[in-house]
Amino acid sequence: MAVQTVATDTDTDTDSAASAVDLGPAAALSCRECGHRVPLGPVFACEECFGPLEIAYDFSAYDTEELRARIEAGPANIWRYAPLLPVPADVAGKPNLNPGWTKLVEAGNLARELGITGGLYIKDDSGNPTHSFKDRVVAQALEAARVFGFTTLSCSSTGNLAGAVGAAAARAGFRSCVFIPHDLEQGKVVMAAVYGGELVGIEGNYDDVNRFCSELIGDPAGEGWGFVNVNLRPYYAEGSKTLAYEICEQLGWQLPDQIVVPIASGSQLTKIDKGLQELIRLGLVEDRPYKIFGAQAAGCSPVSAAFKAGHDVVRPQKPDTIAKSLAIGNPADGPYVLDIARRTGGAVEDVTDEQVVDAIKLLARTEGIFAETAGGVTVGVTKKLIENGLLDPARSTVVLNTGDGLKTLDAVAGTGLTATIRPNLDAFHEAGLA
Amino acid sequence: MAVQTVATDTDTDTDSAASAVDLGPAAALSCRECGHRVPLGPVFACEECFGPLEIAYDFSAYDTEELRARIEAGPANIWRYAPLLPVPADVAGKPNLNPGWTKLVEAGNLARELGITGGLYIKDDSGNPTHSFKDRVVAQALEAARVFGFTTLSCSSTGNLAGAVGAAAARAGFRSCVFIPHDLEQGKVVMAAVYGGELVGIEGNYDDVNRFCSELIGDPAGEGWGFVNVNLRPYYAEGSKTLAYEICEQLGWQLPDQIVVPIASGSQLTKIDKGLQELIRLGLVEDRPYKIFGAQAAGCSPVSAAFKAGHDVVRPQKPDTIAKSLAIGNPADGPYVLDIARRTGGAVEDVTDEQVVDAIKLLARTEGIFAETAGGVTVGVTKKLIENGLLDPARSTVVLNTGDGLKTLDAVAGTGLTATIRPNLDAFHEAGLA
Repeated sequence: MAVQTVATDTDTDTDSAASAVDLGPAAALSCRECGHRVPLGPVFACEECFGPLEIAYDFSAYDTEELRARIEAGPANIWRYAPLLPVPADVAGKPNLNPGWTKLVEAGNLARELGITGGLYIKDDSGNPTHSFKDRVVAQALEAARVFGFTTLSCSSTGNLAGAVGAAAARAGFRSCVFIPHDLEQGKVVMAAVYGGELVGIEGNYDDVNRFCSELIGDPAGEGWGFVNVNLRPYYAEGSKTLAYEICEQLGWQLPDQIVVPIASGSQLTKIDKGLQELIRLGLVEDRPYKIFGAQAAGCSPVSAAFKAGHDVVRPQKPDTIAKSLAIGNPADGPYVLDIARRTGGAVEDVTDEQVVDAIKLLARTEGIFAETAGGVTVGVTKKLIENGLLDPARSTVVLNTGDGLKTLDAVAGTGLTATIRPNLDAFHEAGLA
Repeated sequence: MAVQTVATDTDTDTDSAASAVDLGPAAALSCRECGHRVPLGPVFACEECFGPLEIAYDFSAYDTEELRARIEAGPANIWRYAPLLPVPADVAGKPNLNPGWTKLVEAGNLARELGITGGLYIKDDSGNPTHSFKDRVVAQALEAARVFGFTTLSCSSTGNLAGAVGAAAARAGFRSCVFIPHDLEQGKVVMAAVYGGELVGIEGNYDDVNRFCSELIGDPAGEGWGFVNVNLRPYYAEGSKTLAYEICEQLGWQLPDQIVVPIASGSQLTKIDKGLQELIRLGLVEDRPYKIFGAQAAGCSPVSAAFKAGHDVVRPQKPDTIAKSLAIGNPADGPYVLDIARRTGGAVEDVTDEQVVDAIKLLARTEGIFAETAGGVTVGVTKKLIENGLLDPARSTVVLNTGDGLKTLDAVAGTGLTATIRPNLDAFHEAGLA
């Protein structure tokens, strides 16, 4: 069960410094734009070109079948993939919410409604501890924070992330301090506040919150603070790879033909692609073509708009949609998403808020899964992609639901009683309920 | 992998008729009061004495180690225990929400706060598909409904059960028709309505709803209708045994020393005891003493009151508590609960609504688990039982959380921002947040 912890490729001097930090197979940080490598640390932007840093791994010591057996013998959570993640080998023994290994639901009823004959699966991340996929990424950031000696876990958030950070910090014995706009809806405040950390309302909008957080990171007051989606972002983002690993393992170590992923910053989609590529390179799945589709709400569809216009760059939008967990008007990974969708033969599509609500109800009615608005976006986009011929209904398709409907009850607030009757059989018959 | 499906003990003539119904190891229905046996069918009360019917099993063909290996090789849901449940052997292949195998969280932080040194674990059933333990019991009722040829799944409910039935029916392709009081809170209505089944508001209170459902079962209009908690109750109730099985397997096939269970009707507690007894008889765990503790809210504490008064019967109460999922003023299984608590050396205790809220926050702050009010009841009662010396902090203790905090947000609505500041570092320092 030994994990490869020391970088064996030494293409830059800086790599050897990384050996001081035990983050399993993570060897260095590498710039996505220029390839410049720096040692593992709480940094997120390339000092050469300001491009985003991401984790570079050394998987060279792995034997495919040994690795597969080790994963299959691992715990029923993301740590079964510890050999492929930037975490120490003993991560499963540390206090963590242990997200992941959520259900891959074979959705036969929904497939019939949509006309899909090649197999349809919902990867249902509402089963995570705080009921969104954010638990996956926060769990990675937490382990990095532990290794780097941070004592406060922090983030800026308008929803799911605040709760995920508060819960993870509580469990791990970290202090947490989460920044949100001061006028957030009371329900969301309660969900984030219940874990007992500091929950600070910033007098301003979400942009003001973010600007303040950047200021704090640069200030001595921010020492010891790990912002999961800022200075810990390279580690945090890797958590999305586990969605790719789980889907393939749950399909019997096979790639799906098609996968539909929601787009907020675009990070999740790019990391799912990274995860699939790793499985291919490691020999854990057979190398064959797959298509990745991106899903947005029409009210915040900058990547979809760029895809349709044939652009390589993404023009920012001002979000106006009920799919608030996807409402990032200027998605950092937008260009990478466009590249992946085009390279794999996928597409990026968007649906209206009305279609989102219809899709939430469709999924609930056919499979008993109550999705967050983000799940309505992916299901709605899947339907639209079939209608416009971009998604092949004869091929296997995986659709992501990244959150729980209980978090966005307002979206289906119009749903209600189908009848009201007096408590007797005559009334029952009159209402035509028999 | 063959399952024992035919009753081999023929102590009554009626048992042989049961062989027509394939519900795995379930051999007959047996009266809990007088022992009278009848064939498996959609009945719930003894024709001799009106006592409650429960499932009698034939486990005689099982070899302990073969059974253990078969369970361990089974799916990561309740169907791993199919050989011990009233379901056909091929149940795992049928469309079902597949609840169970929820996390048993080792709660070190909470243990320290409570002074527990013998090991403390939270069995966290908020991880079920509709985020309450009800998915376990509904899954059993659904399989019985399938075997008995019912086409409509129904129940009376004021909350969790309505959603669990609606979701399970949607997934399984059953019609659902759920009856609720017409003036239920809008949030609960939405959670139950989203699955698209019939959701009928009854003009009256919960008692009126129940009375109407009983009338419907006796009427030709109710033909083909499976009421999960009425005519399917014997099957439904068995779902709670899976909590006992999972806890022991997750502890490495060991009994916990102490277990704290919420009491609504009392059925869950009695079935957990039944499950533990079965594991002992089957040799899957070592036979040693365990104590079962019942937990109620002070505002609905008929069983706790009877326990403290030394009574064998339970005097009904009019519920008035925020723990609505436990608010059954006249619990059917109350006398059995009293018997089990006394026989095992446990106790029944209650806590005030204020203590419930404090306990919800305590669990969230220490372990990152956001519990429903019922979870606040069990954690609060655990604390109280330690204070009054009835629960031994030096022995291993399992506390049940049976639902998700997102379903009872109102209970912690007072939780909120810890500070509000302007978006600059001066304000941050002034607020003492560094």
